Amino acid sequence: MTTRIAIIGAGLMGADHARIVAEELPGAALQVVCDMDAARAKAVADRLGAKDVGSDPEEVIARSDVDAVIIASPDFTHAPLSLACIRAGKKVLCEKPLSQSSQECLAVIEAEQAAGARYVQLGFMRRFDPSYVEMTAALAAGTLGRPLMMHNFHRNLETPAAEFTGAMAITNSAPHEFDVVRHVLGTEYTSISAFQPTRSDALVAPVVMVLETEGGQLVTIEINNNAAYGYDVRAELVGEAASISMNHVAYTRLDRAQRQSTTFEADWRGRYFDAYRQQNRAFLRFAQGEAFPEQGASAWDGYAAAVVAEAGVTALASGVKTAVAMIDRPEVYA
Amino acid sequence: MTTRIAIIGAGLMGADHARIVAEELPGAALQVVCDMDAARAKAVADRLGAKDVGSDPEEVIARSDVDAVIIASPDFTHAPLSLACIRAGKKVLCEKPLSQSSQECLAVIEAEQAAGARYVQLGFMRRFDPSYVEMTAALAAGTLGRPLMMHNFHRNLETPAAEFTGAMAITNSAPHEFDVVRHVLGTEYTSISAFQPTRSDALVAPVVMVLETEGGQLVTIEINNNAAYGYDVRAELVGEAASISMNHVAYTRLDRAQRQSTTFEADWRGRYFDAYRQQNRAFLRFAQGEAFPEQGASAWDGYAAAVVAEAGVTALASGVKTAVAMIDRPEVYA
Amino acid sequence: MTTRIAIIGAGLMGADHARIVAEELPGAALQVVCDMDAARAKAVADRLGAKDVGSDPEEVIARSDVDAVIIASPDFTHAPLSLACIRAGKKVLCEKPLSQSSQECLAVIEAEQAAGARYVQLGFMRRFDPSYVEMTAALAAGTLGRPLMMHNFHRNLETPAAEFTGAMAITNSAPHEFDVVRHVLGTEYTSISAFQPTRSDALVAPVVMVLETEGGQLVTIEINNNAAYGYDVRAELVGEAASISMNHVAYTRLDRAQRQSTTFEADWRGRYFDAYRQQNRAFLRFAQGEAFPEQGASAWDGYAAAVVAEAGVTALASGVKTAVAMIDRPEVYA
Amino acid sequence: MTTRIAIIGAGLMGADHARIVAEELPGAALQVVCDMDAARAKAVADRLGAKDVGSDPEEVIARSDVDAVIIASPDFTHAPLSLACIRAGKKVLCEKPLSQSSQECLAVIEAEQAAGARYVQLGFMRRFDPSYVEMTAALAAGTLGRPLMMHNFHRNLETPAAEFTGAMAITNSAPHEFDVVRHVLGTEYTSISAFQPTRSDALVAPVVMVLETEGGQLVTIEINNNAAYGYDVRAELVGEAASISMNHVAYTRLDRAQRQSTTFEADWRGRYFDAYRQQNRAFLRFAQGEAFPEQGASAWDGYAAAVVAEAGVTALASGVKTAVAMIDRPEVYA
Repeated sequence: MTTRIAIIGAGLMGADHARIVAEELPGAALQVVCDMDAARAKAVADRLGAKDVGSDPEEVIARSDVDAVIIASPDFTHAPLSLACIRAGKKVLCEKPLSQSSQECLAVIEAEQAAGARYVQLGFMRRFDPSYVEMTAALAAGTLGRPLMMHNFHRNLETPAAEFTGAMAITNSAPHEFDVVRHVLGTEYTSISAFQPTRSDALVAPVVMVLETEGGQLVTIEINNNAAYGYDVRAELVGEAASISMNHVAYTRLDRAQRQSTTFEADWRGRYFDAYRQQNRAFLRFAQGEAFPEQGASAWDGYAAAVVAEAGVTALASGVKTAVAMIDRPEVYA
Repeated sequence: MTTRIAIIGAGLMGADHARIVAEELPGAALQVVCDMDAARAKAVADRLGAKDVGSDPEEVIARSDVDAVIIASPDFTHAPLSLACIRAGKKVLCEKPLSQSSQECLAVIEAEQAAGARYVQLGFMRRFDPSYVEMTAALAAGTLGRPLMMHNFHRNLETPAAEFTGAMAITNSAPHEFDVVRHVLGTEYTSISAFQPTRSDALVAPVVMVLETEGGQLVTIEINNNAAYGYDVRAELVGEAASISMNHVAYTRLDRAQRQSTTFEADWRGRYFDAYRQQNRAFLRFAQGEAFPEQGASAWDGYAAAVVAEAGVTALASGVKTAVAMIDRPEVYA
Repeated sequence: MTTRIAIIGAGLMGADHARIVAEELPGAALQVVCDMDAARAKAVADRLGAKDVGSDPEEVIARSDVDAVIIASPDFTHAPLSLACIRAGKKVLCEKPLSQSSQECLAVIEAEQAAGARYVQLGFMRRFDPSYVEMTAALAAGTLGRPLMMHNFHRNLETPAAEFTGAMAITNSAPHEFDVVRHVLGTEYTSISAFQPTRSDALVAPVVMVLETEGGQLVTIEINNNAAYGYDVRAELVGEAASISMNHVAYTRLDRAQRQSTTFEADWRGRYFDAYRQQNRAFLRFAQGEAFPEQGASAWDGYAAAVVAEAGVTALASGVKTAVAMIDRPEVYA
Repeated sequence: MTTRIAIIGAGLMGADHARIVAEELPGAALQVVCDMDAARAKAVADRLGAKDVGSDPEEVIARSDVDAVIIASPDFTHAPLSLACIRAGKKVLCEKPLSQSSQECLAVIEAEQAAGARYVQLGFMRRFDPSYVEMTAALAAGTLGRPLMMHNFHRNLETPAAEFTGAMAITNSAPHEFDVVRHVLGTEYTSISAFQPTRSDALVAPVVMVLETEGGQLVTIEINNNAAYGYDVRAELVGEAASISMNHVAYTRLDRAQRQSTTFEADWRGRYFDAYRQQNRAFLRFAQGEAFPEQGASAWDGYAAAVVAEAGVTALASGVKTAVAMIDRPEVYA
């Protein structure tokens, strides 16, 4: 039984998802590629051999020849389209964020509660990256002792847009860290503080956050959207007995001109290529009727990321430590 | 059009290939799993959802519902079954070695010449490993200058069998290095010398080989089948201007008990997981009618590996430098 | 002209200084070893061939056969004995801290101002460590662009005393980081915030601090006195164009039992062996009449470290960001 | 009792030794700097505060105000001047090689035998480098099991002279490897084979040697005098149970322009700075009457290096494995 998948959004991320479905997911078929821009949809569909194209997301989601959906359209459409999928009774892999508004996330949560089941898997693909998987395993094995701190560094070569602000660093870039740290530590945040140095130019300065958790851990996160030297994600999980750190992975090193060097990727697509593949394979099994993926992120995780991002924006603007207050976890996410 | 693939041999390697076909190759179907041991064939077929099983390789190769073949049966069957595939006009991915006998390799070469086309792709999967791909790219880009030397180290945790000898290190383990070095340097060997230290126990001692090439390069290869500490493959390509080395890839590092450490794999299956996947995807495209894969190893490459291994065994036994003499490259491998 | 040096304090640090003077400083003589515990002084003096011993620091400082002084006695004696050296007109290398009280530091500063010259060099030896020297050089060369952030991690195997507190982590361990970061960045702090996770046992939990500087930089400092895995100091200086990080230095790596590993030192004495030697050689030249060492720490630097530590203790206790307020820099430290 | 040291030869190495004596060896005095070129001797003497200068080595060695000697004059003078020191009854630290002629080395050995004591310490400073010290310690501790192989790589940025030949790579550069490997393994060589790739230019091509030892080990040595990318020495000691490798030591790493990099030294002087210091301190203790340094190289070691280098030159010229034949070890080196 082939699972027929519709891709909503044929931009950079949508095209990547379409390629994974077409080339990396035996058991799945690339059924429809949907984009407001019909030409863009057609280009992706033709290149990857999709059955059909569409331009109206709701219509595509409702089609009887579509079994499951991947949403990679603009951020503001994520929650409404996820709700459409729930209404249509179809499993959906929604790119992060579910919504930048925690209220809107709650609407999705309520819809799943009402339906009595989960439909939405969120695209927090880092949970499938071997670095974080090994950290989680080391913690579970007791190698580290009780966790004390997690330090995180997220660096981009440069910001896509000139109008990028510190608040956007928190709402757009940091959610990956907010989510994967919660996932690795298995706890929720209680507070967030935010700091920012000054740059000598017009680019957005890094943001450094310190978060406290229910489990008594400290979490630090640096978001540096204009690191200039490369795409670089680092993390260290410090336990009472030992510490585990993400390595800078490179297959070769070069000795040249009195330097020994390895390369940095230009963006996240090379670094997390395999994490996306693993995530989408997990989603396919979910769409085919298996239980929600153990490593997967749910609408609840999308809500958690939105709440802490909202508190982070407040903390940055006010300069004071801000509480992170979440509703009780609904039963459907138990 | 789905390409229906038969797997000959349901041992460790055969089961791995069957899994890749079933789970990692959209466009391919796991049609038949064939093994002398019917129960073993059935176990793999059932686990991975193969259409059918078989116990007679030649019969399976001839089946009209089999479009292409992967041979992972015992080494001595590789050449005869490859010939059977050529006779049947079917593309075959044959595990290395094509044969330990260069004469037997020539029989396959002659069959392909007679047919006027290549059918056999050999399972020298390292050519698809990112380390070697990056080395080749650095050479092509001129980053290294002209190549001078290539140093190679192949270490296993331990030998599978107690009767493993130095000659077997050359004929069974070294062919991977023989092949990938030829591939990276784009040249043939002219001589080989072999040396061996002594161990204090009954295990096979390492073999160190020095090879000279037509291009004027020196190649060193250490095969250490009982390295005891882990599965570890290293390579360095030294050019006139710079040098590129394979990294020890690990996603995390652990700080514990006054040591900072990363792990070694226990065997090649974890290390080359992705190389096998890429190789088999290239084979699928070949089986579907595309040209022979640019990175792929042919019967000619299997012959080259056999010739140098034969010379290496002589060199080890005699203690003197031994010439590597090959026939002229037939047109079908131009 | 041999410079005759008296060592005040014959404990661990005092004995180390005595050894450096006796064995690593041509041009210096180990004149007197002084300790309240006469037997301890004698043991060190005998082992290293000191001319004489003493038990009264002020008396030793005043001796006419003593040209310069190294203070390694308990912390509370540092400021009074430094003042005694200034009164005696003798150059003094005083172990850190000058005092945990910024007021007491000011008394030393006033004495030097009154004398119109510097006498006190502080034992912030990290300024002489090649890691920080290379960072400073990279900054000066413009390799990094303008500095944005400096991240610092200070980890001990375990705390020497069971009664060690978070406040003590700030006042006893952090001053090394407070000082070397000011030195590398060439700026003063304006605020400090402090955070602490919780441990499951009675040991002191790590302290994480975020500091802001006059230059607009953010500085993070983790002090983990019970890291359990080893003595480990890390630092990263992030500029607008590039980033430079301290390496974990090890001369060899071991491949064993499926792990590749390097070792951590048990404490700071191995790690900073050469920094102490370079620092003391710089002090000798200062004592011999050369200008105050360019890399050296002065009484002003001791005051700066005390002020920020006091603010840090307040920040940790109150949970709020605390201003770091210093007097104007006196002319003698211009 | 200050030990008055004369330096013979005021070139690069001689000036380095003079500096170590003047600045790094408490208990030693830089008594005389001697060079055929009086101006060169004077320049070094003045810069470092030597008592006197000289131009006739034999005369300087015989001076009553000279207690010990360091020879850093041209290679061909090493053996004759060492003999002069033995005649004068003075301890001498002689730069390597003792002589490129094993016969001439034997003359020094005979002189020491006749005198019934050792006078000559050879400047094989690598024995004092922490990398090799840690290897030796790991072997002694049983961490590695019995040694099986040692792989060595010696790379220079470029050759000092255009007329440098492969034979010179063996006689001038390789002796450091010949010596330190013998020292670490505690055995003698029985055979040597030598190989050389071809370069596309007029520079000397690398030489790769394979040596067999009395202990049954294999030793590989690559000498690449025109590596172009930097000064780089590597070594790996492979045991039956584990392996230990020299690290590329760097205090910092730089993240810039999509590369993470560390630097290579331009020559051996930075890399082995501390090894020279430790070696010369050991020599001072020897000159002051202590036993011959445990780690130090003797005239016997100089002879061993010369014998294997002579065999290596033969092996390279003939293309065949060549025996390494030494006299029995005289009692004075027992």
